[in-house]
Amino acid sequence: MQITDLINSIADRGLELFAFGRGRALPEDLPGICRALLSERGEASGIALARELVALYGRLDAAGREAFFTLLAREFGPDHDAIATAARAFVAEPSADGALALAEAAEPPRRELLRRINMLPEGTEFVIDLRADALDLVDGKPELRIVDADLKHVLTSWFSGGFLELCRITWETPAIILEKLIQYEAVHAIPGWEFLRRRLAEDRRCYAFFHPALPNEPVIFVQVALVRGLAGKVGPLLDPDAPVGDPAAADTAIFYSITNTLKGLRGISFGSFLLKHVVADLQQTLPNLTTFSTLSPIPGFRHWLETVAPQHDRPAIRAAAEALLPVLAGEGGLEAVGADKALKASLFGLCARYLGAELRPNGRLIDPVARFHLGNGARLERLNWAGDTSPKGLEQGWGLLVNYLYDPAELEQNHEAFVNAGRVATSRAVARQLKPYL
Amino acid sequence: MQITDLINSIADRGLELFAFGRGRALPEDLPGICRALLSERGEASGIALARELVALYGRLDAAGREAFFTLLAREFGPDHDAIATAARAFVAEPSADGALALAEAAEPPRRELLRRINMLPEGTEFVIDLRADALDLVDGKPELRIVDADLKHVLTSWFSGGFLELCRITWETPAIILEKLIQYEAVHAIPGWEFLRRRLAEDRRCYAFFHPALPNEPVIFVQVALVRGLAGKVGPLLDPDAPVGDPAAADTAIFYSITNTLKGLRGISFGSFLLKHVVADLQQTLPNLTTFSTLSPIPGFRHWLETVAPQHDRPAIRAAAEALLPVLAGEGGLEAVGADKALKASLFGLCARYLGAELRPNGRLIDPVARFHLGNGARLERLNWAGDTSPKGLEQGWGLLVNYLYDPAELEQNHEAFVNAGRVATSRAVARQLKPYL
Amino acid sequence: MQITDLINSIADRGLELFAFGRGRALPEDLPGICRALLSERGEASGIALARELVALYGRLDAAGREAFFTLLAREFGPDHDAIATAARAFVAEPSADGALALAEAAEPPRRELLRRINMLPEGTEFVIDLRADALDLVDGKPELRIVDADLKHVLTSWFSGGFLELCRITWETPAIILEKLIQYEAVHAIPGWEFLRRRLAEDRRCYAFFHPALPNEPVIFVQVALVRGLAGKVGPLLDPDAPVGDPAAADTAIFYSITNTLKGLRGISFGSFLLKHVVADLQQTLPNLTTFSTLSPIPGFRHWLETVAPQHDRPAIRAAAEALLPVLAGEGGLEAVGADKALKASLFGLCARYLGAELRPNGRLIDPVARFHLGNGARLERLNWAGDTSPKGLEQGWGLLVNYLYDPAELEQNHEAFVNAGRVATSRAVARQLKPYL
Amino acid sequence: MQITDLINSIADRGLELFAFGRGRALPEDLPGICRALLSERGEASGIALARELVALYGRLDAAGREAFFTLLAREFGPDHDAIATAARAFVAEPSADGALALAEAAEPPRRELLRRINMLPEGTEFVIDLRADALDLVDGKPELRIVDADLKHVLTSWFSGGFLELCRITWETPAIILEKLIQYEAVHAIPGWEFLRRRLAEDRRCYAFFHPALPNEPVIFVQVALVRGLAGKVGPLLDPDAPVGDPAAADTAIFYSITNTLKGLRGISFGSFLLKHVVADLQQTLPNLTTFSTLSPIPGFRHWLETVAPQHDRPAIRAAAEALLPVLAGEGGLEAVGADKALKASLFGLCARYLGAELRPNGRLIDPVARFHLGNGARLERLNWAGDTSPKGLEQGWGLLVNYLYDPAELEQNHEAFVNAGRVATSRAVARQLKPYL
Repeated sequence: MQITDLINSIADRGLELFAFGRGRALPEDLPGICRALLSERGEASGIALARELVALYGRLDAAGREAFFTLLAREFGPDHDAIATAARAFVAEPSADGALALAEAAEPPRRELLRRINMLPEGTEFVIDLRADALDLVDGKPELRIVDADLKHVLTSWFSGGFLELCRITWETPAIILEKLIQYEAVHAIPGWEFLRRRLAEDRRCYAFFHPALPNEPVIFVQVALVRGLAGKVGPLLDPDAPVGDPAAADTAIFYSITNTLKGLRGISFGSFLLKHVVADLQQTLPNLTTFSTLSPIPGFRHWLETVAPQHDRPAIRAAAEALLPVLAGEGGLEAVGADKALKASLFGLCARYLGAELRPNGRLIDPVARFHLGNGARLERLNWAGDTSPKGLEQGWGLLVNYLYDPAELEQNHEAFVNAGRVATSRAVARQLKPYL
Repeated sequence: MQITDLINSIADRGLELFAFGRGRALPEDLPGICRALLSERGEASGIALARELVALYGRLDAAGREAFFTLLAREFGPDHDAIATAARAFVAEPSADGALALAEAAEPPRRELLRRINMLPEGTEFVIDLRADALDLVDGKPELRIVDADLKHVLTSWFSGGFLELCRITWETPAIILEKLIQYEAVHAIPGWEFLRRRLAEDRRCYAFFHPALPNEPVIFVQVALVRGLAGKVGPLLDPDAPVGDPAAADTAIFYSITNTLKGLRGISFGSFLLKHVVADLQQTLPNLTTFSTLSPIPGFRHWLETVAPQHDRPAIRAAAEALLPVLAGEGGLEAVGADKALKASLFGLCARYLGAELRPNGRLIDPVARFHLGNGARLERLNWAGDTSPKGLEQGWGLLVNYLYDPAELEQNHEAFVNAGRVATSRAVARQLKPYL
Repeated sequence: MQITDLINSIADRGLELFAFGRGRALPEDLPGICRALLSERGEASGIALARELVALYGRLDAAGREAFFTLLAREFGPDHDAIATAARAFVAEPSADGALALAEAAEPPRRELLRRINMLPEGTEFVIDLRADALDLVDGKPELRIVDADLKHVLTSWFSGGFLELCRITWETPAIILEKLIQYEAVHAIPGWEFLRRRLAEDRRCYAFFHPALPNEPVIFVQVALVRGLAGKVGPLLDPDAPVGDPAAADTAIFYSITNTLKGLRGISFGSFLLKHVVADLQQTLPNLTTFSTLSPIPGFRHWLETVAPQHDRPAIRAAAEALLPVLAGEGGLEAVGADKALKASLFGLCARYLGAELRPNGRLIDPVARFHLGNGARLERLNWAGDTSPKGLEQGWGLLVNYLYDPAELEQNHEAFVNAGRVATSRAVARQLKPYL
Repeated sequence: MQITDLINSIADRGLELFAFGRGRALPEDLPGICRALLSERGEASGIALARELVALYGRLDAAGREAFFTLLAREFGPDHDAIATAARAFVAEPSADGALALAEAAEPPRRELLRRINMLPEGTEFVIDLRADALDLVDGKPELRIVDADLKHVLTSWFSGGFLELCRITWETPAIILEKLIQYEAVHAIPGWEFLRRRLAEDRRCYAFFHPALPNEPVIFVQVALVRGLAGKVGPLLDPDAPVGDPAAADTAIFYSITNTLKGLRGISFGSFLLKHVVADLQQTLPNLTTFSTLSPIPGFRHWLETVAPQHDRPAIRAAAEALLPVLAGEGGLEAVGADKALKASLFGLCARYLGAELRPNGRLIDPVARFHLGNGARLERLNWAGDTSPKGLEQGWGLLVNYLYDPAELEQNHEAFVNAGRVATSRAVARQLKPYL
């Protein structure tokens, strides 16, 4: 990475080299550096200034960070007088030029500041970290929302799909990247390197998207198991001692874990894009695959079942919940439900209801995973009993897991029906389970 | 380039694969595709739509292209009613949130359209080409200036310095890239491969900046000769048969050609950034180098001398031009001037005036090359008689060439004095030449 | 190439670094360095000594080189007394151990010397150059044949097939390699870069084998045209302005040029190996290809026709030659032959005879190209009138070219029949042409 | 690795593709395949035959392997009659040509067989594995020694120094290679990935030599700690929680582990070569380093002290051992020795004797590690009390460790004195310790 070394060396000798010497008025304070970076001096000594800014920020404590974001909010926003002038002119005589002038007046200098920080090779990473910090602060501080909005605006532009590169992750991938998988894996934790090794064996696939400015940092990764038939239980897929299957004999690709790694990119969407690329790569390299499906958790089902369902306005849901909850609460309750055909059907039915029909006040599905996959055009295919019997699996969804099926032939029409009409694509089996609770 | 092949394959099977099939309402027309790409459908089938857009655009003739830009200007600008509403609200009660709302209302959907095109790996290249087309059209069509502004806005964000990678170009570089150098070299044309080979020999250096989305397309390149002492004549530097010097024995790096390759990036500045990186790399790898200087053309000097100087409001300039021009106009005129000490001094003096003190109405230097290097903080170091005796050199500047000296120790202060006070840094010799004509 | 730089630096500081200092008895003379390199000192300071040897050799003139090879022949051969002792012991009591002892006694120290030179990264290249020099000298000097034999022995071991890497050569290949193609192409000269570019276009393929010790030096390369049907004329394949075809539409791969680049590797065979790999790669990447054939020159046909055929012991051959030669000798002779059905048939027949049945005293085919392809298991498929009407083509074979067909299904049986029974595989057409002259 | 995939595919389709079909007389038996591979057929179908041979060998059990080596010994040796004829001719009239003829007659066909196996990309690895198997068998079976000799002969030629590439191993190295370090590390075991990570931190260096035919298989690796002053204890160097030092502040490089990974390359020496390259790379990249030293185990000292020293023919050694052993044998014996100045001096003295002066019957030093480093030209610099207090360290050398110092300025002269005169270079301190026991 020639340029990295080079720019590091510029920055090391930095201030000397480009005459931003110690002997002169060095802005030790962040506000001064930010101002200088946006000024003409920023054009001449931008790299040294940006490097200084990054270093100083790194030494701030929580209070300092909040002060920094407040500074960005107050001092580096657009000039209200200029906006007002342009706004009045536009109102008086609307025109394309007036709209452009207004857009320029309203463009916050913060954004340009962030772009100048990005003259550093590590600038992109720093701005992502800034965003993560902003997300931590923004809840209590509505004033900072506009800073977060600008961070997101700039990052969205940088993380444009065409800049991302899809790579297969294998046991030949550098350890520094594999380590990130172990760290970031959020769906089914990877307890150690030997577990990771199994997840990279012949009958597994792992893909990651990389951004050129973050060569050792996967932005998203997807883990896939190559199996025969739709997998309903995740345990065998994670077992490090499971025998390794022949990938050429597999007909089904199960996406059993999808992880967004960087908090600072939250809300910047490339998931649908990613999965389609992964599907395309799998189709090319393993032409025997006919089925592409997830095996997904149902994160809030148990909580919903215990707190929302008993007071639901649909009597059928209330009744089913009231029948189920006492049994589930007992010792061996889940087995008892499993052994009782009617109760088991109720549990499946309520789960289908939770995934496919329970909405937030804003009209969107309550389950975030369902929202993501159905929004991508997938189909709610199958609910699986005892799919994940780990403590986490029981805690989230009483051990149930769900398959969302990605059928290339119907992705777009599902997506449009979902987005425009709120219609959820389901298999017949799930439709049947859902019916009593609609 | 795994992802390229992959996405090509998506696009080839494309519409089928992601269910944007021929049998359904395929928007053959560009307006429809643009609208679809910005709609919800764009999220599900963006790649196929963007590919279609790129293909359709490629088949347009000049009239079609103008119609397309007019479409972008008229239909894909911001909603004027929404802007007006937000503008009135802001005027009534200015606030940071109101400014953000206004900025969002004024953000043209065109920009998002361009970002979605960039889901394609070749999207960046396409947008650069669009910009080049826009620049061709915009002169006669002020309406299209706003489209050009948006293209530039989006490209500026993508071509953020930290994304560019500096690479040394050598004879081991792929031919597909070397070929671009031959094509693009604008300062001193490269007549063929054997000439290029000499420019990549041991005592030369060539650097290029690359953007990750354009791996085979250098964005800027710089050619350097490693010599002893300040070179004043470009002929020996270009001579394919010149003996190859020992780079370790050189004390001076002469930047004899700097080329921005892509018209679509015009006005997006990274030149200062580039040269500093090149200086830093040269310092690292060749510690014997003590002097970094250009050997630059003086593009408009002769034209200025012949048309502006004779009518200048400074009598000294008028007088000098009137003495020089008849001699220069005669057969062997240049030699005659060279043989006459006073005339030669006049020519140098007027050239120093042209470079260092002649301003446009907007107060900026008239010579674009001087503006660039002096703006970077370089110093007007030396004028060279018979520096470039090629027809082009005689046509541009009566054969004169100029050295702009990059002294790392004074770059920043020169830059600031130039930008803030319009002060041009000159060597004593040039100052002396310039004095009679100030 | 980290190690290269490193070892260069060892060698530069070299003698100092590893205490083979100037102050000590530096063997300036080659014999002394060779002895030292083979001694214990060679183990400690081998790299510096080998580097010195290479440098000294490089400064030798022709006489010096001959002296050096004579030195290798006389002083660095095996110890005759030791051989005699081991030989007597073996004769007295043959045994496996005795054979091994004898082999060790007979192993010339020259070989170990060459292996120690190969501690240098550039050692392999140097030994290849040595061999080329040896080949130049060996003719007049039978004494040097044993040195050549040792050079070939060592190189054969290093150029073991598994070490060679097949690479496709494209316009994205480094110029330093492409330049070699222009230099080395022996079959159909490449007049310049734009001609090369056409040979690397979409409807062409170029492959090269590389050895890891010679990363910028192709050892063999093969040029292929992708066409429909068996090509019989080479002109259209070489035409830089020919329209570029669609490779996916091609059914036939024509190998129109195969070049061994390095004289020093003469007689070390990997041609069959190479072509099979190329066929396999073409089959994989272009599944539409069904036919693999050469379009080859017939280097000695005209010479044979004019000097051997008229005095052949087969009367039919004599008669045909006597009928043909006077016509060919006249102005427009070739056209005259072409216009006369019987004469044309004679020319084809004699050519088939020359290629498929004319033997050297050692029983091998007289034509080297035929020997190579038929030895690989190819079939003599078709003779082509006016296949190469360049001066060289007329000079070599009166413009005739031949297709050798590589049919994977019969390669091995053709090879065995050829090697064991001297049977040449021919198409029916060629068999018919050949028949009158058998 | 294009060629690997390609050749795998050739081999997969293999026999079909190159017409060595099942329908024909497939030599299922190893002897037949070996014969075929050496025959003409081997030239045409070598890859398929070699692949078959490798596959069949892989399925052999221990008895089968012995049978295979016996086959190689008996059937694929040189022709004794031919040798005898050539031997008689040479004895009758010695000549260079006669010596060459004899060498050729004595060259075992086994070697050519091994070279033909090496047409496979995985051939090199297979031959290394064969050698490892041969080493296991050869002890009991003197007949097989000649097979081992041929394997070593061929491998020595392939593992010529110039073919090896030195690479730095870091945390960015592919996991498949790092895993090998964990597996192979023989000196100080690496208990897990987090331990490995520490050994690759900023203040450590790890180098490996690779052969191009074994891209994922380090042939040797060396682990280095960058410290201030000569390190005498290995514990802190291995501690995963030790704070990471600044490499630029280090003045000393401690080689604390050197591992030859592949049993099949045993006896093929490149250690001296390797260490010199590592020293050169360290000097280049860390110019502050002034001292290069090992911190090495003393594998057989305790065993020698307990079994050989008490019966030594030097009375001083006998006496010292008799004084030491009873104390060492007691509970806390080592501490007791450490607390007694005279006893401690005796232990150091006997250790110096063991390392620097105890010889095998063949006149070489008894300690293999001493033999290696002193043979490279290093100096016996310092003995370290409690250098390795692990069970293994106590078991091998009562916790003592030794520094061998690599001083570039004296390497060669030490090497020559050692090899020619058996003189061991020692520091003054060690010379003093050794003196009473010489």
